[in-house]
Amino acid sequence: MFAEYFHVNDADMNLAHLPGEIKPEVAVMAADMMTTGIHGAELADIPPGGTVTVIGIGPVGLMAVAETKLLGAARIIAVDSRPACIKAAKYYGATDIVNYKEHPDVAGRILELTGGERVDLVVVAGGGPDIMKTAVKIVKPGGTVSNINYFGSGEYLPIPRIEWGQGMAHKIIKGGLCPGGRLRMERMLNLIKYGRVDPSKLITHRFRGFEKIEEAFYLMKKKPRDLIKPVVIIEE
Amino acid sequence: MFAEYFHVNDADMNLAHLPGEIKPEVAVMAADMMTTGIHGAELADIPPGGTVTVIGIGPVGLMAVAETKLLGAARIIAVDSRPACIKAAKYYGATDIVNYKEHPDVAGRILELTGGERVDLVVVAGGGPDIMKTAVKIVKPGGTVSNINYFGSGEYLPIPRIEWGQGMAHKIIKGGLCPGGRLRMERMLNLIKYGRVDPSKLITHRFRGFEKIEEAFYLMKKKPRDLIKPVVIIEE
Amino acid sequence: MFAEYFHVNDADMNLAHLPGEIKPEVAVMAADMMTTGIHGAELADIPPGGTVTVIGIGPVGLMAVAETKLLGAARIIAVDSRPACIKAAKYYGATDIVNYKEHPDVAGRILELTGGERVDLVVVAGGGPDIMKTAVKIVKPGGTVSNINYFGSGEYLPIPRIEWGQGMAHKIIKGGLCPGGRLRMERMLNLIKYGRVDPSKLITHRFRGFEKIEEAFYLMKKKPRDLIKPVVIIEE
Amino acid sequence: MFAEYFHVNDADMNLAHLPGEIKPEVAVMAADMMTTGIHGAELADIPPGGTVTVIGIGPVGLMAVAETKLLGAARIIAVDSRPACIKAAKYYGATDIVNYKEHPDVAGRILELTGGERVDLVVVAGGGPDIMKTAVKIVKPGGTVSNINYFGSGEYLPIPRIEWGQGMAHKIIKGGLCPGGRLRMERMLNLIKYGRVDPSKLITHRFRGFEKIEEAFYLMKKKPRDLIKPVVIIEE
Repeated sequence: MFAEYFHVNDADMNLAHLPGEIKPEVAVMAADMMTTGIHGAELADIPPGGTVTVIGIGPVGLMAVAETKLLGAARIIAVDSRPACIKAAKYYGATDIVNYKEHPDVAGRILELTGGERVDLVVVAGGGPDIMKTAVKIVKPGGTVSNINYFGSGEYLPIPRIEWGQGMAHKIIKGGLCPGGRLRMERMLNLIKYGRVDPSKLITHRFRGFEKIEEAFYLMKKKPRDLIKPVVIIEE
Repeated sequence: MFAEYFHVNDADMNLAHLPGEIKPEVAVMAADMMTTGIHGAELADIPPGGTVTVIGIGPVGLMAVAETKLLGAARIIAVDSRPACIKAAKYYGATDIVNYKEHPDVAGRILELTGGERVDLVVVAGGGPDIMKTAVKIVKPGGTVSNINYFGSGEYLPIPRIEWGQGMAHKIIKGGLCPGGRLRMERMLNLIKYGRVDPSKLITHRFRGFEKIEEAFYLMKKKPRDLIKPVVIIEE
Repeated sequence: MFAEYFHVNDADMNLAHLPGEIKPEVAVMAADMMTTGIHGAELADIPPGGTVTVIGIGPVGLMAVAETKLLGAARIIAVDSRPACIKAAKYYGATDIVNYKEHPDVAGRILELTGGERVDLVVVAGGGPDIMKTAVKIVKPGGTVSNINYFGSGEYLPIPRIEWGQGMAHKIIKGGLCPGGRLRMERMLNLIKYGRVDPSKLITHRFRGFEKIEEAFYLMKKKPRDLIKPVVIIEE
Repeated sequence: MFAEYFHVNDADMNLAHLPGEIKPEVAVMAADMMTTGIHGAELADIPPGGTVTVIGIGPVGLMAVAETKLLGAARIIAVDSRPACIKAAKYYGATDIVNYKEHPDVAGRILELTGGERVDLVVVAGGGPDIMKTAVKIVKPGGTVSNINYFGSGEYLPIPRIEWGQGMAHKIIKGGLCPGGRLRMERMLNLIKYGRVDPSKLITHRFRGFEKIEEAFYLMKKKPRDLIKPVVIIEE
């Protein structure tokens, strides 16, 4: 909400108390990045100890790394090229990095890393429509491609026929917007309170004052290499 | 098996007793058409009373009609143009037929039939890669496209971006080969024995004698309009 | 509602249009008996072609018979002794009846009927706490006991230790009140409209006029042997 | 296996390679304690950020603590009185301890700790049949009681009628033996290899030599207060 006052319907269903020990700047991450990242993880039943690839590790993808770890993944392969994001991905639990500038054939590299076995879950958190080709190639038969990315252009998302087993390979393709609500937010906040996930590492830039919102947006548009997520602190 | 004798491994896991009251010609339908059709239905949790579309009602699609009915669908819309198949689909539980020769815009017709609401489950049991465009268009957000079709050509299956909610619509896409085994076959046979599904209506042509196998295959290749499925009865 | 006017909150969430072809006396069964019976069936994933026991076939149990059939059961064993209910159970899809007056050892009889294999799902729709002993005995390892019965007395429901595999047998025990809401009611009504379930056979007694409500209640208290469910028709 | 040589059927299905970096004494924990503890967690879909109680924190219960954390629990309440186990439970992720010597009314204490809200999942990893009373009392409607305890005595496990909502509360009761097999073991080993779970903290006593097996068993029978789990190392 970019307003000093606003109205919320059904407060009991939509508003969660913020425990005193959690800073508002961290809590805003729970209500957006964290719950979206978790959604990428929960769309698939990750087998405990399973292997996951997260494609795109901007703030949502980083939370998908943290939360596939949270939901039982052992090996987590993150795909990106931005140094600040790669550093954060390792902090959040990535065990392997595929830098697509070094390995333009991302699918080939992941097949190599997994000894040809592929991965149990692919979270798509970045890229254009063609990223689905890579995602379907690297997921095991029986595994899931879980999209939390907004596809803003292109007419079709291409599912590669052979790698989808000519329709027979039980590679599930899902994609959706994360749920919200008080109960879920209380659980997100509990994850922070009990030290399971710390989204504060996403915050690379801090602004102070309501009037800085525009500047923060321009920063997100410019995407400097050291940016993960900015926050604007209205008052303290 | 096109042989007079053959070997089966792990007999306890793979061979089911055939109850005396079920004819072998019906039982062969259980082991192939029925279990595949059920798989199309079971890949999605059909909500009891939900609405389903089955695209393509050859023998597998017809069993998908029978078995989405078996698993709780209320309204079942079958898409095809062959009179013999349409007649059988009505027998097996289709409540609406979309003949694509009369309604080339299949998706538009199904939106019209459902008052714009779309359907809970689409079983794809026929068509080339482009059939996925129709399937994704007509499924509700939160619903499932379940493919039991073998896609034999084309490089990609196109998922329409807008209708897939730009990645956000929770339209699940699945596809796979049906499971087998003794336990499942015993349950298929029980469905026949207790009168829940009667696959015998699939059999439109009967041959007698081992040497007629070739002729039956040529019939399947020619696809006369009154053909659903032939059987070759070796001995009685 | 035993009133001539009443207020419903959140109408869009709670009120479904009644299609003209469904009589109000049938629709009231959808909103109570049918949705409860379906809940007993949907609490377990019945494997298609599986075997089910429904214990207690009053109106809710009868709907559980109809709806385990609706959700894919092949063999359905109904347990009761009332002739009117037994007749209705056969109509709704029961393949076997265990009359506990003839077979006081219900569990033993069901083991006998299933050749010692037990059943995939037990729906408990009647009986006191001790019925849980029977239910756990007759369900297969990996199967589900699904309770839709209100237990009005007794301190504990006894789970038999040995038959529950000393805690190790994967026999799931569930029980709950069925969900409601517009979407679900629309689907219940579609099941009636498309001929999948006909709850009208539950109605054995009809009263006319608002003032007959008390009489109808006394009838339910007396439970004559030919009663399944009475309805009071306010106006036509 | 208490033998120097033994035969394993279906090696490809049952034998997993042990990565060089994992010690055999740690690997034996994966094949027993870890997989059992995970089973307690995976029997329920823990909502990410949910609250869990683990009753009994011997070695299996401790792994249930580690693995409900692994599968997304935020707050984990462990119930026991043994100091060595309590220390290990905190290491593995318990956020609260209920020592039943200080709080004999365990259920009352957990209601107090959760502000009357109860918990999403109860893992029963110790206690006699009456522990089910506590478990059902403290689980939320809609939550799961997941038993991984072997109940060695008693005729019945008592489910408290009122707290089970008279049969209507959707409190699911499950219990089972954990699955095994190569694929699962490879995933358990990956959890160790990638630092997600470290079962080595369970090992409090080490013996060397095949002939020490008997001594180790007597230790497990005596249960000294500092014991969690002994290992016998045959050769190094």
